[in-house]
Amino acid sequence: MWGGRFSRDTAPLAEEYTESVSFDRRLYLQDIRGSKAHARMLARQGILDNEDVEKILEGLDRVQEEIEAGNFQWSTELEDVHMNIESRLTRLAGEAGQKLHTGRSRNDQIALDFRLFVGDCLKRWQGLLLSLIKAFRDRAEENISVLLPGYTHMQPAQPVSLGHHLLAYSQMLRRDYERASQCRKRTMVSPLGAAALAGTTYDVDPHSPARELGMHGCFKNSMDAVSDRDFVMESLFVGAVIMSHLSRFCEEIIIWSNPGFAFVDLPDDLSTGSSIMPQKKNPDVAEIMRGKTARVYGNQMTLMTLMKSLPLAYNRDMQEDKEPFLDTDKTVGDSLRIMTRMVRDIGFNSENMEKALRRGFLNATELADYLTEKGVPFREGHRIAGEAVAFAESMGKCLEDLSLQDLQTFSPLIEEDVYKVLDYHQAVSRRESPGGTGPKALFAQIAELDEWLGSLPGRSEGDDFF
Amino acid sequence: MWGGRFSRDTAPLAEEYTESVSFDRRLYLQDIRGSKAHARMLARQGILDNEDVEKILEGLDRVQEEIEAGNFQWSTELEDVHMNIESRLTRLAGEAGQKLHTGRSRNDQIALDFRLFVGDCLKRWQGLLLSLIKAFRDRAEENISVLLPGYTHMQPAQPVSLGHHLLAYSQMLRRDYERASQCRKRTMVSPLGAAALAGTTYDVDPHSPARELGMHGCFKNSMDAVSDRDFVMESLFVGAVIMSHLSRFCEEIIIWSNPGFAFVDLPDDLSTGSSIMPQKKNPDVAEIMRGKTARVYGNQMTLMTLMKSLPLAYNRDMQEDKEPFLDTDKTVGDSLRIMTRMVRDIGFNSENMEKALRRGFLNATELADYLTEKGVPFREGHRIAGEAVAFAESMGKCLEDLSLQDLQTFSPLIEEDVYKVLDYHQAVSRRESPGGTGPKALFAQIAELDEWLGSLPGRSEGDDFF
Amino acid sequence: MWGGRFSRDTAPLAEEYTESVSFDRRLYLQDIRGSKAHARMLARQGILDNEDVEKILEGLDRVQEEIEAGNFQWSTELEDVHMNIESRLTRLAGEAGQKLHTGRSRNDQIALDFRLFVGDCLKRWQGLLLSLIKAFRDRAEENISVLLPGYTHMQPAQPVSLGHHLLAYSQMLRRDYERASQCRKRTMVSPLGAAALAGTTYDVDPHSPARELGMHGCFKNSMDAVSDRDFVMESLFVGAVIMSHLSRFCEEIIIWSNPGFAFVDLPDDLSTGSSIMPQKKNPDVAEIMRGKTARVYGNQMTLMTLMKSLPLAYNRDMQEDKEPFLDTDKTVGDSLRIMTRMVRDIGFNSENMEKALRRGFLNATELADYLTEKGVPFREGHRIAGEAVAFAESMGKCLEDLSLQDLQTFSPLIEEDVYKVLDYHQAVSRRESPGGTGPKALFAQIAELDEWLGSLPGRSEGDDFF
Amino acid sequence: MWGGRFSRDTAPLAEEYTESVSFDRRLYLQDIRGSKAHARMLARQGILDNEDVEKILEGLDRVQEEIEAGNFQWSTELEDVHMNIESRLTRLAGEAGQKLHTGRSRNDQIALDFRLFVGDCLKRWQGLLLSLIKAFRDRAEENISVLLPGYTHMQPAQPVSLGHHLLAYSQMLRRDYERASQCRKRTMVSPLGAAALAGTTYDVDPHSPARELGMHGCFKNSMDAVSDRDFVMESLFVGAVIMSHLSRFCEEIIIWSNPGFAFVDLPDDLSTGSSIMPQKKNPDVAEIMRGKTARVYGNQMTLMTLMKSLPLAYNRDMQEDKEPFLDTDKTVGDSLRIMTRMVRDIGFNSENMEKALRRGFLNATELADYLTEKGVPFREGHRIAGEAVAFAESMGKCLEDLSLQDLQTFSPLIEEDVYKVLDYHQAVSRRESPGGTGPKALFAQIAELDEWLGSLPGRSEGDDFF
Repeated sequence: MWGGRFSRDTAPLAEEYTESVSFDRRLYLQDIRGSKAHARMLARQGILDNEDVEKILEGLDRVQEEIEAGNFQWSTELEDVHMNIESRLTRLAGEAGQKLHTGRSRNDQIALDFRLFVGDCLKRWQGLLLSLIKAFRDRAEENISVLLPGYTHMQPAQPVSLGHHLLAYSQMLRRDYERASQCRKRTMVSPLGAAALAGTTYDVDPHSPARELGMHGCFKNSMDAVSDRDFVMESLFVGAVIMSHLSRFCEEIIIWSNPGFAFVDLPDDLSTGSSIMPQKKNPDVAEIMRGKTARVYGNQMTLMTLMKSLPLAYNRDMQEDKEPFLDTDKTVGDSLRIMTRMVRDIGFNSENMEKALRRGFLNATELADYLTEKGVPFREGHRIAGEAVAFAESMGKCLEDLSLQDLQTFSPLIEEDVYKVLDYHQAVSRRESPGGTGPKALFAQIAELDEWLGSLPGRSEGDDFF
Repeated sequence: MWGGRFSRDTAPLAEEYTESVSFDRRLYLQDIRGSKAHARMLARQGILDNEDVEKILEGLDRVQEEIEAGNFQWSTELEDVHMNIESRLTRLAGEAGQKLHTGRSRNDQIALDFRLFVGDCLKRWQGLLLSLIKAFRDRAEENISVLLPGYTHMQPAQPVSLGHHLLAYSQMLRRDYERASQCRKRTMVSPLGAAALAGTTYDVDPHSPARELGMHGCFKNSMDAVSDRDFVMESLFVGAVIMSHLSRFCEEIIIWSNPGFAFVDLPDDLSTGSSIMPQKKNPDVAEIMRGKTARVYGNQMTLMTLMKSLPLAYNRDMQEDKEPFLDTDKTVGDSLRIMTRMVRDIGFNSENMEKALRRGFLNATELADYLTEKGVPFREGHRIAGEAVAFAESMGKCLEDLSLQDLQTFSPLIEEDVYKVLDYHQAVSRRESPGGTGPKALFAQIAELDEWLGSLPGRSEGDDFF
Repeated sequence: MWGGRFSRDTAPLAEEYTESVSFDRRLYLQDIRGSKAHARMLARQGILDNEDVEKILEGLDRVQEEIEAGNFQWSTELEDVHMNIESRLTRLAGEAGQKLHTGRSRNDQIALDFRLFVGDCLKRWQGLLLSLIKAFRDRAEENISVLLPGYTHMQPAQPVSLGHHLLAYSQMLRRDYERASQCRKRTMVSPLGAAALAGTTYDVDPHSPARELGMHGCFKNSMDAVSDRDFVMESLFVGAVIMSHLSRFCEEIIIWSNPGFAFVDLPDDLSTGSSIMPQKKNPDVAEIMRGKTARVYGNQMTLMTLMKSLPLAYNRDMQEDKEPFLDTDKTVGDSLRIMTRMVRDIGFNSENMEKALRRGFLNATELADYLTEKGVPFREGHRIAGEAVAFAESMGKCLEDLSLQDLQTFSPLIEEDVYKVLDYHQAVSRRESPGGTGPKALFAQIAELDEWLGSLPGRSEGDDFF
Repeated sequence: MWGGRFSRDTAPLAEEYTESVSFDRRLYLQDIRGSKAHARMLARQGILDNEDVEKILEGLDRVQEEIEAGNFQWSTELEDVHMNIESRLTRLAGEAGQKLHTGRSRNDQIALDFRLFVGDCLKRWQGLLLSLIKAFRDRAEENISVLLPGYTHMQPAQPVSLGHHLLAYSQMLRRDYERASQCRKRTMVSPLGAAALAGTTYDVDPHSPARELGMHGCFKNSMDAVSDRDFVMESLFVGAVIMSHLSRFCEEIIIWSNPGFAFVDLPDDLSTGSSIMPQKKNPDVAEIMRGKTARVYGNQMTLMTLMKSLPLAYNRDMQEDKEPFLDTDKTVGDSLRIMTRMVRDIGFNSENMEKALRRGFLNATELADYLTEKGVPFREGHRIAGEAVAFAESMGKCLEDLSLQDLQTFSPLIEEDVYKVLDYHQAVSRRESPGGTGPKALFAQIAELDEWLGSLPGRSEGDDFF
């Protein structure tokens, strides 16, 4: 392939070790799209004549058909997706095919292909994120009046609406959407025209193929263009944060499936049983998703380590950027899809949630606040409520089951109206501060979310990436 | 501290293990700023009366003075920065001090403090990035006509301008600036008013303190507000990418310092000698910076791992978010500062760079392009040039030293004008495609960069973060 | 410090960036021990005369006293622990002090110091691991007859003895002990005598100081000796696995503290309350330990990344090996100590564990096995038991509460003796296979563990690292 | 598959997400070996009758044949390798096939299969490590008299023998061998008989299948047996350290291939050219190996993250342990194989190495030592040599080219015999301290290495894993 200087062929062992076509063939569509844009630019600039370009475009169409029909002969000897396609093109289009390489190198070509590919994936993630955000939003709306313990330190802290809890995930995923969107903008910058690293002697116009390919801009410096893999690091990071969010809900699904909670009933078709223990219904999907978070983290760390200390410009190490991304893309995509279905279909057991509220003395803070409102300094009110909890616990009772007489031994300021305060639904209803757990606050949250969803560009009615 | 329910004090071992004041006291300023904004809001909303708020504000001023004068008694028993300050405030401002906690919890308070702190750091990074971008830009402008080998695979590939090489780093750092800026916007979102996790029963107005503190927005969901650490993950990622860029230039400095290259002369005051080998001048600063990249990567991985699978809302694990960030902030800040100085003061040895050009047959691509322009298909021209290199190498000569007769044995299309093509400066001058290495293209790059620098908000004349 | 070749001093910024004395002073004892062993060897080999060596030894004693009394003037200008000590020594011992550097370089000196330091830490970890293994063992022995659900997928699977559960951790930690021991052996290999990288012209004897310092062997290749940091990577890995084990028990403590389980009662002095919610008793210690696992992982990844792609021999990057280790050492040591106390003092609530057994249909497998023993193929028995569970659940009953008549509707082979099989204690007692959860199997496990503990070298009666 | 309790089948999406047969089928051989050992044990213990066991063994042979002939129908619906094989076995062996599951669960079965698989891989790594150790040793022996600069900080430090440099890698890899061997011992511990997590009611004998399978021991605690993945974490770590060592030599190959060094001539069949630059000969294999180090690091971090905070006993997350290991196994195996070939075939250019020696003032330390031997304190001798270097450099000369007169201006103690000291081969020959770079020291190193190689168990004559 590189001719004159070499007297021996690459050893099969080395060929297999260094080839990339086994995975970068996944980028064939981007490669062909990029080559077409490049060829048209060469024609427009008068570098190639129209006839040659026509042959190239037809040849590329033919190659695409062959690949999609499964008739294309991929060859490891030809190393990568570019050489495979170019080699076939040259057989189809003759000498014209060879001219396609004018003013271009594999260094800017692979950077372009991969940017287009990552850009496509990020767009798909964005769509899937919106579907999941909407799933959380819809289940939240349904469950505003269902209460469960809000936990801190995995200890019951304060009663919250289940709707409130679910909307928290919508907010996390909304940040993910924003990060994906900004990352995509940085990704969709065309490196085509950087050639090997120094630009080219041809009078190329890098901007026109960039526009044709729907990119946001064009490289500024050709050495940077071929040596930059920030977009891979960043998209892997965006994926890792998405998975960290999903892993948190997975953890909750797993714990909530335990009979000590029994807050949820998993959809039969998203859980499994045991080959040995007949009573089991296992949250496998949530466990595996929690587990897959680790590999997505590992992939990001791989890219960071890969790029450390590489001198300019292109180094072959950088070929190792693709497999981690492909793996992350599959994992993130599948996880978002399946989690959307999980959120839509999971059953919530409001009765068990309420039981957990009572068991957890979740109105203790209410009692403290009640006392504060009666003029007791907060720290003092807190101490009093703590003593009341200790007393109730020793009696095997809830706070709301204590008699007024009993309660008054802790503070004479406690009166009959305390029972209203100790009621869980009332407690929740009183937290109507912005972003809080009260029903009005929650409807406002949903309205604001809907407004955001409505404002997104290019998100048409009925659009659903699931 | 938490009163009624506990019959034994925390063991000293556990107290030391769980305390955070030894590091979160670094956030005292953000804590005080946040508390003042909270107090003023409480007054505006009529939750506290003005007199109490005045006492609180005065007390907080006094606390700040004490801390900055080194007179403040930090106590590990009081666990964290908030309790230390509140405890002192209460002694200074009496009962009013205790009321400051109204409608607020340590959960939203620490999230606020840390967001303000990270936001301040990101702003400082942005300033330092601009200084370094400008240092690269200035040295690039000075060195446009200096040529060196552009490397791929660490092999000489094509001649490039040193200015071109240096400008590549400006482009990398510009992306870092953009990422830091977007991350800062997501960081500067106020969680104050989320209270413990559920919002509060008080009629608080979270937006007014957010505005007062110069933040970009306000939390949407109180459970998310206290459990979200995306901003830490993301700022650590931004720092990690910055270090990955610096590590690449460090690697070049280290290699270029080796006598086999001798492209650079390190500033005496940024390098060290050997205690045993008198001839040594070591690029320690670059090596240590390359090494410190690893810890910044480690810190990001720490945060990712930390947050995986944590159920809502606050978990105490999250306290472990601060030390990795503090360490990264110091490393990134120091590294940017010292690299700016390195870039400004490093000496470039153009003579040795030129020697390396000749040694590396860096005009072979020119010969291939020359043949292509004469109508030879590119792949064919490439093969011919490769054979000419092999021949010249076997003779111990450069391509430009071969006689026309010799050259014509490889292709009869080669004529006298080939020598102009083989000249390195001419070769570089012919690569004037946008983003390329030719001098006009480089001046255009610098102009575009200057335009961007000029367009940045709030970057006034003479502003220099170094 | 390195004299002739330099015309300008190191910039303060660079000095601060590259200094290591702020952390490597922690190695002063190892530095002095190593220097003494080196000096004695130099005397034995006739390289230095006895008088000089006496002065050196006295001087080093004096330096140690000064350091331990807090009177030593550490100077950042002198860069590291070696230069600080040598400089002071030279002032105390005159010219003799300067001779100590004969046949040695900072490269082999720091490698020696750090190997001795890591070796000391690993030994301490080993002692702490044994204390924790013993704590688990003791609580296991106490709790053999307490039953709780054994979980898979966080779902109740089969009843197990609490003793069995606790002994699982003893086995994990035993592997940690073994790994630490093997890692320590590889760490305690002396690099002294490798000098800068090439060995020395002096007739040194590397073996004698190695023996004097209690090391297991001596370097084989001087370039490897100064460039190897495997021992740091490996000890950080050993620490990371220890933390992974602790994090698993932390997770259980946190979940078991939730009222939905209420399996444990945390020691008051190892848990905390809430400043806002009076009813809370938080498993902070377990949460922070789970969180600190992340930093120990990050530290290991830092070292791996640090050492990647470093050419031979010493590179200054390697100075960055110390802080991650110091941080891990502190974290691992403190965590083992505090977990030992936690295991000793935690209360187990056997009543709640039993309740969870009943709630989880934990005798369903018994029913399947019962049917298998009556000749039903296992998969068939499993199906029948699954149907019985579904029926009982729909009736709000446990399996053992169903009438014989009801049970027989699932299989006519079920007879009166099924109730013995469904009894949880009987179920556990029937699992006496080696390593199983039956009481005899557990006593055998404890006996085997005691035998191992008794067999450890140098572990004398009453020896307790806690 | 798990019958009674489920009313809907698993969704295809979930089935695909949770299946493992696409990768764990790679463990079919271990699964069959394990099943046979289990079946024989069941017969010996009288749990199954001999006839059934015969049918099982024959059936398993048949399954193995089918798999190896490519005729086996793998089904994703059957989830994993165990269910696929068991299902086919049951069709082949009838009811006997179903009985194979007696006293066993998928939890101990997968742990067994994977331990056997990892054990096999580690053994292969050990063999490959020995081949590479021997390749380094052989090339070292050939090149003892070839000198090159020994670098510290990538700066020429002292002259060393190329043999010395290469032997350093043998020592690194020897530690890898030792770590792999110890890790393998901990891996080859049988978990069979732990059943789901609690042991079994059958009178099984776990020791006899363990022995039959060539394992080193047997689990002690059944809960630990099914929840432990230390062996995966540790083998991934062992692989990561191997790659870190290879990455260091890769870095050297890459730098040494640059014309500024030109120390090596890459084998044509292990390097590639450029599609655009005819003069290029690229060290792709070394670059890709350096790059692949990153993924092996990422895989280890994945496992660490995966196992963090998992409660006992089996969790489905743990299924994610296989792909990282498979990927690491392939990478480590291929890399060792190809590096062995690289080491055997790479050409060393002793002339260019010698040039680099002269260029680097690599005899400056000799001059300092010379002065020290004449009674000048070391630090003083160092200073003098440094000044001589600065002078020579300013004259464009080497130290050995300076006249005696010139040299004496730096110290009157310098005499004619200094030139012998400044000779590089003499300098190297004078470093005969143990482990040093002198030829006698190197022959001793090789002899010691040969002794170790000869002492390894089971390493028979002519045994070569390459």
